[in-house]
Amino acid sequence: MSQEPVRGVVVPVITPLDPDGEVDEASMASQVERLVDAGVHGVFVLGTTGEFPFLTDAQRALAVRAALGAAAGRIPVLVGVADTATPRVLDHVAAVADLPIAGVVVTAPFYAATSSPEIRQHFRLIHREVPRLAVYAYENPPRVNGASLSTADVMALAEEGAIVGLKDSSGSDARLRQHVLERRRRSLDDFVILTGSELTVDCALLIGVDGVVPGLGNVDPAGFVRLYDAARAGDLLAARAEQERLFELFDIVTIGTEQPMGGSSRALGAFKAAVQALGGIAHRCTAAPAVQLGDADVASVVAVLRRAGLEPSPHAAPTAVTDPAGLLAAR
Amino acid sequence: MSQEPVRGVVVPVITPLDPDGEVDEASMASQVERLVDAGVHGVFVLGTTGEFPFLTDAQRALAVRAALGAAAGRIPVLVGVADTATPRVLDHVAAVADLPIAGVVVTAPFYAATSSPEIRQHFRLIHREVPRLAVYAYENPPRVNGASLSTADVMALAEEGAIVGLKDSSGSDARLRQHVLERRRRSLDDFVILTGSELTVDCALLIGVDGVVPGLGNVDPAGFVRLYDAARAGDLLAARAEQERLFELFDIVTIGTEQPMGGSSRALGAFKAAVQALGGIAHRCTAAPAVQLGDADVASVVAVLRRAGLEPSPHAAPTAVTDPAGLLAAR
Amino acid sequence: MSQEPVRGVVVPVITPLDPDGEVDEASMASQVERLVDAGVHGVFVLGTTGEFPFLTDAQRALAVRAALGAAAGRIPVLVGVADTATPRVLDHVAAVADLPIAGVVVTAPFYAATSSPEIRQHFRLIHREVPRLAVYAYENPPRVNGASLSTADVMALAEEGAIVGLKDSSGSDARLRQHVLERRRRSLDDFVILTGSELTVDCALLIGVDGVVPGLGNVDPAGFVRLYDAARAGDLLAARAEQERLFELFDIVTIGTEQPMGGSSRALGAFKAAVQALGGIAHRCTAAPAVQLGDADVASVVAVLRRAGLEPSPHAAPTAVTDPAGLLAAR
Amino acid sequence: MSQEPVRGVVVPVITPLDPDGEVDEASMASQVERLVDAGVHGVFVLGTTGEFPFLTDAQRALAVRAALGAAAGRIPVLVGVADTATPRVLDHVAAVADLPIAGVVVTAPFYAATSSPEIRQHFRLIHREVPRLAVYAYENPPRVNGASLSTADVMALAEEGAIVGLKDSSGSDARLRQHVLERRRRSLDDFVILTGSELTVDCALLIGVDGVVPGLGNVDPAGFVRLYDAARAGDLLAARAEQERLFELFDIVTIGTEQPMGGSSRALGAFKAAVQALGGIAHRCTAAPAVQLGDADVASVVAVLRRAGLEPSPHAAPTAVTDPAGLLAAR
Repeated sequence: MSQEPVRGVVVPVITPLDPDGEVDEASMASQVERLVDAGVHGVFVLGTTGEFPFLTDAQRALAVRAALGAAAGRIPVLVGVADTATPRVLDHVAAVADLPIAGVVVTAPFYAATSSPEIRQHFRLIHREVPRLAVYAYENPPRVNGASLSTADVMALAEEGAIVGLKDSSGSDARLRQHVLERRRRSLDDFVILTGSELTVDCALLIGVDGVVPGLGNVDPAGFVRLYDAARAGDLLAARAEQERLFELFDIVTIGTEQPMGGSSRALGAFKAAVQALGGIAHRCTAAPAVQLGDADVASVVAVLRRAGLEPSPHAAPTAVTDPAGLLAAR
Repeated sequence: MSQEPVRGVVVPVITPLDPDGEVDEASMASQVERLVDAGVHGVFVLGTTGEFPFLTDAQRALAVRAALGAAAGRIPVLVGVADTATPRVLDHVAAVADLPIAGVVVTAPFYAATSSPEIRQHFRLIHREVPRLAVYAYENPPRVNGASLSTADVMALAEEGAIVGLKDSSGSDARLRQHVLERRRRSLDDFVILTGSELTVDCALLIGVDGVVPGLGNVDPAGFVRLYDAARAGDLLAARAEQERLFELFDIVTIGTEQPMGGSSRALGAFKAAVQALGGIAHRCTAAPAVQLGDADVASVVAVLRRAGLEPSPHAAPTAVTDPAGLLAAR
Repeated sequence: MSQEPVRGVVVPVITPLDPDGEVDEASMASQVERLVDAGVHGVFVLGTTGEFPFLTDAQRALAVRAALGAAAGRIPVLVGVADTATPRVLDHVAAVADLPIAGVVVTAPFYAATSSPEIRQHFRLIHREVPRLAVYAYENPPRVNGASLSTADVMALAEEGAIVGLKDSSGSDARLRQHVLERRRRSLDDFVILTGSELTVDCALLIGVDGVVPGLGNVDPAGFVRLYDAARAGDLLAARAEQERLFELFDIVTIGTEQPMGGSSRALGAFKAAVQALGGIAHRCTAAPAVQLGDADVASVVAVLRRAGLEPSPHAAPTAVTDPAGLLAAR
Repeated sequence: MSQEPVRGVVVPVITPLDPDGEVDEASMASQVERLVDAGVHGVFVLGTTGEFPFLTDAQRALAVRAALGAAAGRIPVLVGVADTATPRVLDHVAAVADLPIAGVVVTAPFYAATSSPEIRQHFRLIHREVPRLAVYAYENPPRVNGASLSTADVMALAEEGAIVGLKDSSGSDARLRQHVLERRRRSLDDFVILTGSELTVDCALLIGVDGVVPGLGNVDPAGFVRLYDAARAGDLLAARAEQERLFELFDIVTIGTEQPMGGSSRALGAFKAAVQALGGIAHRCTAAPAVQLGDADVASVVAVLRRAGLEPSPHAAPTAVTDPAGLLAAR
């Protein structure tokens, strides 16, 4: 288990579920295998794309175990341990601290309104509890009531050694640049900055970040690896061309209009439907209380895949509409 | 134990902690006793005021057990089981379903972005799991990324029997009125509507709601009982006078300027400092990563108490500044 | 021209337009006459309900002149002079300063981001320019990018004599109470506080405000006068009954679903359609670029009027759908 | 007057004011001359940076005349005509339509809440009024209550010929990419897309936009020209180096902490103080009700200029603190 900070394409792996809403460990193994085969540099289990808010503690343990088993030490595995405040996060940390993971990923506290000193203290206390564990801060203000780590917060924690990296999903390239320039100013060369914005990875790499955590990487991991490699080789125009193709592929998250859905169930449902169509997982179910994509939606997802050059697998299970939460029937 | 929906003054009881950050069960018992003595009509354990986002599952169990023991069947006890999505809430429900509680209180899912059908399904699935348990919906959009139950959502769930009541902390009296009129239109007379806005209870009772869930009720439960009784007796001017006194008392939540604090730690720190000063609990600590009120802040809290006619207890422990999270030292 | 601050029911009068989008002065006179007949205590020209953002300077001058002529000194007339910043507001003030108006109404600056000292200075400079003119602050954060006058801002300006009153459309009764109690604490008895929330006027009067500025008062001015009189006479239950009827009447602003519309054009279109149906104005047109209500929408408005006890006028012009901006044709 | 859409570096020129708050036409001429000398490709008068919300109609006319006179046909001049709704914008358009300008720049309506069809109609009506005039849409949601033109809105208006370009200040590079790819898909090759985000111009040019509208270009126009030229020549690393220097220079907008200021007066005050220090304008005053930067703030601005390689002019007027609005004295 390496504590070298993770760089490159780190895919926030989906958590495959079966029609009963339980973790489908075989599909998790299969999907991690796909990611390793595609050459990604790491996986991140229990991120937002991994449906962590929808999984019980027992399910989370299964998902982590399945992912670690499949990765088998070939690529580093990060684990999300976000929760509403420090004591709860510490419980999640304790559950994974002795596993061969490459680090944990933590958001600011959410639900209750906090402040900059409290957000900093949150990360300090986690680091104090398990100092040997690498901690990555996860910035995603819209998901945590607007709570945000400023560049000053991030770099203070980096200097103290409380965090080794940042995943920034703010969607602001100006903010990424502020992090990158401040890192340089403070000579924090080992501190890792990853973007969570999968639609402008070429820009982020131009700015100087170290990698990307793309939810869409579940669908087309090889595309993100090509994009990353091209940019690393200095060929930004090739990176841009790959990014533009992936941008069009991302259109799948706007499908799901057969019925009203939340943004989360629409995007996660599309990712899962796409991976299922590509043969990566057995079922496309998302967790309760999510509305499920319908068959026509899935056909639209497949059409977008084809336009982006991804051919559905002939072995993909033609799963009938799944409805773990009884949503389709109940409404 | 009756499943008759709870009406009147239902205090969202604070969770007393000791300087190690652990649940102080003796203080919980003492505080519940104060509330019973003051004549409140119920207590609500593990609400936002009860610091549920800051407590581990084990701590939550202790808090519930202590409160139930102290209430001893004299007043109904509601328990908060909010979490990010349905499967996690169901785990919390399972932990309390066999206890002598009067019901559970649940917010909309948070962190992930959901939609109206998904929010409805969230409540339906909880009800389906334990039909004999009374479920109250808890509306507090700023805490859950803006997710909100419309009047149509609330009343549909009420008609189905999925929920027996609503705690609305939206701060909008127009919204309370919309609920009340729609309840009348649909003849849902048994459905209970409680306001979580402790500063306009007289208005809410004029509008026709059935009670209030006031965080400030931890400090002055008798005041809220007098306010409620006056309004029920038709004396709105007396209710208003009591409300105005309580409004001034609420100023304690604006103290806490010795150092930067989040809104949550400022308000909860003030409630706890006030209850400690009044002899209700042993320590004023709030949970990590909260910044703690300083001694000068506490003196300001006591001054506001006195102005509102509440005399500090001579037996209140002159607790030195507590710092369970090492925050004061660490910054 | 009286400088006695305006109290009671102050209707923010709609600006009637003809199918060419020009100010219909005859209809303005007719509508003001309706309001005077109903016993309202004042009118407010060029408020949000008066479509001030949609009117040219020339049109504003016509609207003010028509309203003043119709009021004929019988009731006070306030005039809105809101604009993006002080120099522009001063131009609007200069245009009306010599007319027999009872005061001007001003929001915080908008478009550019300002701060508390700048908002205060905005009002001070306006007062300094025309000290004899009564200035009312208009609080409506959602319309002005969230800019807000705190109670401290309002009362500082009141103490200096820069403003004589406040129209608060924040929708928060807790905020109204804060204003009322702070006014009492500072003995600013002459300072007038009006609510702009037409759905909870009974609550606001219980709290202690001095009146209401109800857009819906264009439709049913007599209802608001009855509500106000009942509350002033101490009969809050009668006030509530009237308020509940008016609440149901307010449903007209949710009509307008034949086609996508903004919240503004939906509400203003409904107010105008209702007043037209009641015989108050000749046309229901709203200003460009507003989408217009369709005929079916108007039929729905009339149905709601009837349910609320308001009988359409047999003399109402059966105006065909008007489309001053060519919107219906163009899309 | 050229109708060729403007590309490259288009500086939203500040409106220099004198200590009485009046337009300083000589300074406007001097500043425009600086911009022409630096090789910028156009100027935009009466943008947000040009303080349009703070200027009367008469002042706007002076600013436009001075800028046009100074530009003298050497570079195209765009003019901002934003206002709350269509009729008012048409008045502003009429005021400039016969001048030798290269086009007008218009935001979505603001203050009142509108909708997508209404925003589209707003632009259509402006184009219909003066078809020969080039209209640029200006996207800046935080300034206009969140109103936003979707890519679908923008491209529909482009296809109709209602607008010839877009200035996008949303701060989202993903959004810029969406515009660029949709433009390509619809073969709208002549439609111009400019970014208003001056901190990530290298990214925007990589994405494929046609230019930038940088407020900071008032301070260092030559830097933005070098950045643009490098990117156009395919040397993105040189573009990045220049951008990084300009990013550090942008720190001047965070100065202004001697006293509470709004974001607008802090940024505009810094731009003006910097240009004054560089000899471009006579006074650094910003319009009422803005708080003015103090002397210590100005010294900090000059220090940042030096760090970014910009040497203050020995001829810069050592203007004492100006205070057109009496703010410094009054508070």
